[in-house]
Amino acid sequence: MPELAYLNGKIMPIEKAFVPIEDRGYQFGDAVYEYIAAHSGKLFRMDDHLERLEQSMRALSFPPVPRQTIVQAVTDLFAASQMERAGIYIQISRGVAPREHAFSNRKPVQIVMTAKSLPDAHPHAQNGAAVITLEDFRWSRCDIKTVQILPNTLAKQKAVDKGVYDAIFISEKGVIREATSSNVFIIKDGKAVTPPLTPNILPGITRKVIFEICKNETIPFEERSFTTPELYDADEVFLSGTVTEILPIVSIDEKPVADGKVGPLTGKLYRELRRREKGEPS
Amino acid sequence: MPELAYLNGKIMPIEKAFVPIEDRGYQFGDAVYEYIAAHSGKLFRMDDHLERLEQSMRALSFPPVPRQTIVQAVTDLFAASQMERAGIYIQISRGVAPREHAFSNRKPVQIVMTAKSLPDAHPHAQNGAAVITLEDFRWSRCDIKTVQILPNTLAKQKAVDKGVYDAIFISEKGVIREATSSNVFIIKDGKAVTPPLTPNILPGITRKVIFEICKNETIPFEERSFTTPELYDADEVFLSGTVTEILPIVSIDEKPVADGKVGPLTGKLYRELRRREKGEPS
Repeated sequence: MPELAYLNGKIMPIEKAFVPIEDRGYQFGDAVYEYIAAHSGKLFRMDDHLERLEQSMRALSFPPVPRQTIVQAVTDLFAASQMERAGIYIQISRGVAPREHAFSNRKPVQIVMTAKSLPDAHPHAQNGAAVITLEDFRWSRCDIKTVQILPNTLAKQKAVDKGVYDAIFISEKGVIREATSSNVFIIKDGKAVTPPLTPNILPGITRKVIFEICKNETIPFEERSFTTPELYDADEVFLSGTVTEILPIVSIDEKPVADGKVGPLTGKLYRELRRREKGEPS
Repeated sequence: MPELAYLNGKIMPIEKAFVPIEDRGYQFGDAVYEYIAAHSGKLFRMDDHLERLEQSMRALSFPPVPRQTIVQAVTDLFAASQMERAGIYIQISRGVAPREHAFSNRKPVQIVMTAKSLPDAHPHAQNGAAVITLEDFRWSRCDIKTVQILPNTLAKQKAVDKGVYDAIFISEKGVIREATSSNVFIIKDGKAVTPPLTPNILPGITRKVIFEICKNETIPFEERSFTTPELYDADEVFLSGTVTEILPIVSIDEKPVADGKVGPLTGKLYRELRRREKGEPS
């Protein structure tokens, strides 16, 4: 099957899907998005993603869209794609209007989706990846999932240019925030720790699933701020996200994490996440 | 004439101009822009705008575009519009590519422009406008003219909702930065003061023209940081920008600026700017 797009009610090949140049998503970055993965033919945690999508829209005072409209579109697009393992990208912008900063919200929002196949596993899932840290230079509302992500792309490119996988944003004072498209976890003395939710951190769905796994598997976990020295000194480090899944980090700023190998708790959490994604009983 | 667009070499009505949904400008806000005004049939300071456009592109590692390509497109579009007083909006994105954060730059950039008529004068030019101040929540590279301006639209909307014209961004420590699409000047004891250029401030073309006018008219001026108390205590305050021109601010956070009337130096600078825009000898 060709890669497909959904655009305001119609399904079409991606290369046929166009938006007007005065879409506010294009001229102001006035748009929110979500990315839902399907594993073994089933969309994983769709309700959580749509709940967050609605939160993002409310945070920007978008006119609401009935959840059923989105559910139907996602379901139809995924069915049309005939894929078992796919990623559905959903972007909703404040719609098309003559360019001026203030918005009337009298125009309908613009809904765009794409369906693409996902690889069977993240390429670095087995052996882990290296990252750099970088001072956060994004805007102050990264808890809202918007397309204000040029800084994320620049940071990712900086990492790639340095020969590593990704960059972790830290505050001016060295407090760990998140990676360019994932949350960050450390494991120290058997306990999983991730920064608490603030306006600088996306409330990750996988982050939430990890808490559930920890509870189920009686792995202690904590939402707590920590800084670069604690990151460097962790027993294990991993990133979490819908595409990232649970990705072991084995090197940070050119220094190995512990012995530089994928740690046991990261491996366990990864296997448990994969089981849930495939719909196996937990 | 209908409002016109330029899209990769062709001129067409705006409503016929569409971009692919995988334009990186749409999915990442990975795009820069400029806005050039034409007065009395002449494009004002085009070279300055194109110089800044190239600076923005370099700052984001965009592949370069020959200046002559842009000049020709702007000139053709303006001629086709048959307008005397117009605004040419230029947006260049990193082009169309399957969605992933890192960029290859192997795809050509996407060049989009619109031509629209401009009113004869800013609606608040005569009597001045009111503003609020707001803590800056934008990203840390507002010196680059990108479409990462969702926070600017939210701030503008907040101002409109409060019944005023615009918002001025201030740092966490109360240092004045700029308005949502203009630079900020104060006048105190006959001297014009504006914040120095930092990564949080756009190097405005009108800002630069104002320096030239000050030199020519022997009005003292200074680039210097100042904070909210000094803003409130100014003799005169104005915003500057290509569309804003020189816009008197007569009220800030519900308090009048001086006697709440448009000040004499603001008026003088405005008249001098207008003369230059119209191509009259300075």
